[in-house]
Amino acid sequence: MSSQVSQYIRDNRQQHLDQLIEFLRIPSISALSDHKEDVRKAAEWVVESLKGAGLTTAQLMETPGHPVVYGEWSHPDNTHTILVYGHYDVQPVDPVELWDSPPFEPVIHDEKLYARGASDDKGQTFMHVKAVEAMLKVNGTLPFNVKFLIEGEEEIGSPSLDAFVSEHKDLLASDILMISDTPILGKGKPAVCTGLRGLCSLQVDVKGAKGDLHSGLYGGAVQNSIHALVQLLSTLRDEEGRIQVEGFYDGVIEPTEEEREGYKKLGNYEEELKSELGVSELFGEAGYTAREHTWVRPTLEVNGIYGGFQGEGVKTVIPSLAHAKITCRLVPGQDPDTISELIENHLKAHTPPGVTVNTTRFDKGKPFLAPTDHPAFKTATDSYEKVYGEPALFTRMGGSIPVVETFDQVLSIPILLMGFGLPSENFHAPNEHFHLENYDKGIETLLTFWDTLSL
Amino acid sequence: MSSQVSQYIRDNRQQHLDQLIEFLRIPSISALSDHKEDVRKAAEWVVESLKGAGLTTAQLMETPGHPVVYGEWSHPDNTHTILVYGHYDVQPVDPVELWDSPPFEPVIHDEKLYARGASDDKGQTFMHVKAVEAMLKVNGTLPFNVKFLIEGEEEIGSPSLDAFVSEHKDLLASDILMISDTPILGKGKPAVCTGLRGLCSLQVDVKGAKGDLHSGLYGGAVQNSIHALVQLLSTLRDEEGRIQVEGFYDGVIEPTEEEREGYKKLGNYEEELKSELGVSELFGEAGYTAREHTWVRPTLEVNGIYGGFQGEGVKTVIPSLAHAKITCRLVPGQDPDTISELIENHLKAHTPPGVTVNTTRFDKGKPFLAPTDHPAFKTATDSYEKVYGEPALFTRMGGSIPVVETFDQVLSIPILLMGFGLPSENFHAPNEHFHLENYDKGIETLLTFWDTLSL
Repeated sequence: MSSQVSQYIRDNRQQHLDQLIEFLRIPSISALSDHKEDVRKAAEWVVESLKGAGLTTAQLMETPGHPVVYGEWSHPDNTHTILVYGHYDVQPVDPVELWDSPPFEPVIHDEKLYARGASDDKGQTFMHVKAVEAMLKVNGTLPFNVKFLIEGEEEIGSPSLDAFVSEHKDLLASDILMISDTPILGKGKPAVCTGLRGLCSLQVDVKGAKGDLHSGLYGGAVQNSIHALVQLLSTLRDEEGRIQVEGFYDGVIEPTEEEREGYKKLGNYEEELKSELGVSELFGEAGYTAREHTWVRPTLEVNGIYGGFQGEGVKTVIPSLAHAKITCRLVPGQDPDTISELIENHLKAHTPPGVTVNTTRFDKGKPFLAPTDHPAFKTATDSYEKVYGEPALFTRMGGSIPVVETFDQVLSIPILLMGFGLPSENFHAPNEHFHLENYDKGIETLLTFWDTLSL
Repeated sequence: MSSQVSQYIRDNRQQHLDQLIEFLRIPSISALSDHKEDVRKAAEWVVESLKGAGLTTAQLMETPGHPVVYGEWSHPDNTHTILVYGHYDVQPVDPVELWDSPPFEPVIHDEKLYARGASDDKGQTFMHVKAVEAMLKVNGTLPFNVKFLIEGEEEIGSPSLDAFVSEHKDLLASDILMISDTPILGKGKPAVCTGLRGLCSLQVDVKGAKGDLHSGLYGGAVQNSIHALVQLLSTLRDEEGRIQVEGFYDGVIEPTEEEREGYKKLGNYEEELKSELGVSELFGEAGYTAREHTWVRPTLEVNGIYGGFQGEGVKTVIPSLAHAKITCRLVPGQDPDTISELIENHLKAHTPPGVTVNTTRFDKGKPFLAPTDHPAFKTATDSYEKVYGEPALFTRMGGSIPVVETFDQVLSIPILLMGFGLPSENFHAPNEHFHLENYDKGIETLLTFWDTLSL
């Protein structure tokens, strides 16, 4: 890559960070309908940013939900196209009282940028825009055509994107897809993510008596919706964390011995993880390491539970209603619809007496494995190594990017997951942040990739 | 009783109801610190109401919590005194969206008065004030001296009243204590309550990792606080509702065969209860009827549960914190402190790996049995019979009035629980209401009692 391009990035660093901070100030929480206008505002911000970068096309494209931002630049001499995917929406911020600074008032502290979306995924999306901008401003051209697809529903499971990608298959046609929404292994330890877990999710609603009851007048003679929910949820996992839903593990593709050996080379993760999480002991299925628990094993987690009185003190009530939110992380060999159905059947079969149970399905996404023999993967690891001075490893990630499976099926092109976040950056949690070291090195890595890729 | 006294009640019915509605408009929720001023306002309202009724003394008396209202009227010729206890505080109103009309905007519909506190206990307390007012206005005197003790912390377990009663034992000295805070058996079926269940309560706080975690990045390798809480709570009861806390049933005084025979004469309650509660089946400990479940058997209920994400849709988070609120209804032979300790020990012994569990105790109250051979009990049942045209039965109640045990121990006088609410009036729940039929008949019953009591 030309040193002028890098120099452009260095010269404009403060201005770019100011722009990113402006982007992060927009509370584009896709899950909350109150923030619908903010989500749109963030989309419009991305359009302007792409225009400012020199793209010839940059526009909002409507969906049944939040809009997609599409941008492109092409040159008749270029024969290949890189598609960049990112998302401009962010997770909710509660419990907001646990943030050290307000989630939408970004602050840089100790070379870390704190804000909801700093790392997941506004910061990482922004780096691609700036890399392209630098090449266009300095060289007036790009070695490949580029297309940007930046969506606003990733954090709610991309409900509109499947249809959007299918409908605009020709518009999106490219040779390779780049996504920066995955973490590297740690400080100075780059990695290319070659696998993601899938997702299925559902809400469980338990109803007992037709209204809340006085626990003195009725207690002992009627089912309590919370007890019923607790009893029901307790049947989902055994005491060691193994999921008890019949058929849940059927078809799971176990990692190969070679893969497991590779993960072992990454070193022991348990002590680091305990310290990071502030727990005295980890907890997981027997026979697997913590890394394997999060990368190659499926999970079932209750993400939220609520019912009855939640205020100060106590209220002697038998609640009519109790609710739980459940998500599963799925691994290759598991299908979200099948797993949802198995869970629904389990809940039905284990419903305690005296209550009715209803379920509602939410987000889902299939698991993913990358074609690591494609040449772009070698270019990617080499680019990381050149910038970071450390070889990049092939890893997996326990998170889900549901749309990856859609791209895989609809576009049938290699998907390169080149992330720059650190695992400790509190994605989805209070005090999300992004290390500026990886912001800087990440843009340099992307520029090296563009410069050295041969398709 | 003189017909003029009854006539006074009839003539002033609308005015009295307007006063009660004014009383009910004050949101005196003792559990919520935001309503502290409202609670005081309700106390001041009661003072004015007692003064208006003709009492010679009526005043606020401070406590470490919400104030007590004390009032009295005496005449040198009277040798005996009736003490009336009631409470002017009310339960919280959530889930407020389930109310058909706002809880603090009373409405009369179909001869029922809807408002939080309509029945429990503002309405019933108000009836005593009006009965005394009628006798004083019409006769200028009362056959017995009267003292009123109306507190503002009943719904939070009367934390200040134990000390208050002990400290003011001489001031409160009386021959009999009347309380109207218990239901009759049903429409036209009066009853004197001869037993109450006690109460103990605690909050359980579970903590896993030091913060909320992304379920993709960490899921499978770390304990989830909600799963741990669910697992812990599921150990407290078996699938049939029998409490599994070691020693919980030790010392429980079983009802006598005679008592159980008496309850059977009240008829089958199960079908009525199912229909009232809108459930297809009841749920309770084997070997007892529904009436026994609620009158003579102890319970352990989770009254509230919360943790993780509770908003729209899903959030793929592993929550750090999860909480539950637990109360037990206790029967004669059980001690609240002992039971709390047994539960705490159980929770400690069953804490799942990877989390810490803390407990906080809240309200408590001992169970109670009345001395039914005292003559006031016969006068009470006769008074009901005269007004309702039906014999009044001795029953028990599953609810708790913690202060009853205090009065029993400190004042050592017979406690007469003469209630006028119906079991279906949604105490502690949305759409609490009070049947005006029992408001009218109740005042008449109280007047008859005053008129015929011989001490």
